[in-house]
Formats: sequence, structure tokens, C-alpha cells
Amino acid sequence: MKLSLFSDYSLRVLMFAALKGRAFRVDEVTVAYGISRNHLAKVIHRLAKLGYLATRRGRGGGIQLARPAGEIRIGKLVRETEAQPVIVECFDAATNTCPINGSCLLKGALAEAMNAFYATLDQHTLEELVNGPQRARMGRLLLTTPA
Amino acid sequence: MKLSLFSDYSLRVLMFAALKGRAFRVDEVTVAYGISRNHLAKVIHRLAKLGYLATRRGRGGGIQLARPAGEIRIGKLVRETEAQPVIVECFDAATNTCPINGSCLLKGALAEAMNAFYATLDQHTLEELVNGPQRARMGRLLLTTPA
Repeated sequence: MKLSLFSDYSLRVLMFAALKGRAFRVDEVTVAYGISRNHLAKVIHRLAKLGYLATRRGRGGGIQLARPAGEIRIGKLVRETEAQPVIVECFDAATNTCPINGSCLLKGALAEAMNAFYATLDQHTLEELVNGPQRARMGRLLLTTPA
Repeated sequence: MKLSLFSDYSLRVLMFAALKGRAFRVDEVTVAYGISRNHLAKVIHRLAKLGYLATRRGRGGGIQLARPAGEIRIGKLVRETEAQPVIVECFDAATNTCPINGSCLLKGALAEAMNAFYATLDQHTLEELVNGPQRARMGRLLLTTPA
């Protein structure tokens, strides 16, 4: 079972944003995680469109969380970043080739299991992920300037 | 969220085997799903190694379930066919590059969500997936000779 790289990077960017607690620049995230600037710019653009990040150009600008970290549920977030919720082929009608699609009970069982996956993630907020006892350590590892 | 193609095909082969109810040949599954013989041969070989299928060469031989369909739990099966349970990069220590691995609470939340996913699938057996009211229809769609 694999999440998209896009979801993985989205989670990392938002954790960075929550740890930072104020505006930052793309380059800071690039340095923090060693991920290409190009990839991160796309992720940040999409997270801004989804309403998770606010971006402002120019001097005094930067990127920051668009809503309180305590209001960001991880399950909802990952549902949104996993743009195509295609766990197996038949979840995408456009490309499905499986002949039993429509009478197969597996599809329902997989949908149910995915719901359980997301419901479990929804028990966690972004704030909770960065505000545990490891906060200081994560800050030291990720932030070039103190939070 | 995506399962490996290997898991997808494993599920299809086992559903075929359960519907068939007696020995069959690789070519029958190839025809049923339109999946390459080469791919399917690998899947069948692995499912035999895992103890889900029994294979016997020669005349009167063939492939069939190695245990009753009612004893095959879907969660356990998919855990086994998802050889690398790497939902995001940090689940594989060998290739991880994320600097906060070890202090990050996201990893625990994702592991918990994966467990919920598999526990939900474990509520279903292979028998249940093929013995619903759609059994006859699935049989017509998949089996070249009546089950």
C-alpha cells in the first residue's frame, strides 16, 4: 500500500509550516528535506489551492499555514492530496479492464477498508503531529532559523 | 492510496480459483481477465509459495486453492502480497531520506491507519467475496467452462 509522493511531500511541507509557525520561503523547505525546489513549488501551489497554505509574494511575503494546525485533520488532508483515490484498477472507470467490475464484492470491501484508513488518520490533527515531546528535536532537524 | 499490481492480480487469481472450485490452467485466467500469461505465472508461483494455491504439472494437473476459501482472510492475504509495506518513504529504512524520521509522529499515525485498513479487510474471507448473490454472474463473466 502506497501513498502518492505528492501526499508524502504535502504532509512534510505542512509539518514544516506548523513547526515554523510564521512565514517561510520554498528554499527553506528544500534545504530541510532535501527535496527538489521544483517538486516542492508544485506541492505548495496545490496546497494553497486546497486552502491549506497562504502564499504572499515579495518582501515580507512568504508561505504559511492558512488555518490553525489544530483544525487540519490528517485523513481529510490525505483524501485531498491523493487526487486519484484508485486503490486498484477498477476504482477508475476510465481505465478499468477487469470484467467482473460491477458484480465484484471486493471493491466494496476495499472501499470500506480505505474509509477505515482515513477515519483513523482523521483522529490526528497537524498540530498533534508537531506538538508532541519531539517538537524541539524536529525543530532542530528542520528549521534553519529557530521557530 | 494504491495497492501493488501484484496484490491486485493475486486477488483476481484467487477469486477465479474460488469461483472455479476445481483445477484450472493459467491460460483460463489469462483469458478471463485479459492479463498477460507471464504476469499471471509469476503471481501464481508466488501464491503457491505463500500456501494459497496448489499446483500440479502434467495431465490431470492444474492449479487450485490450497485451502478452503472460507479460511482465507483478505487482510492477511494482502499484507502478504504487499511484499514491501512502504506506505511512504520512511517505512523503508534503506531508502529513507527524511531527516525527521525517528521523531516524527506521522509515521505512527500512518501505521495505525494501515492496521485499520487491514483489520477491515480481515472481516472478509475469499469465500464471502465469491458466494454472494452475484456468484452466477461472476461465473458467467470469468469461467469459460461452467464451474
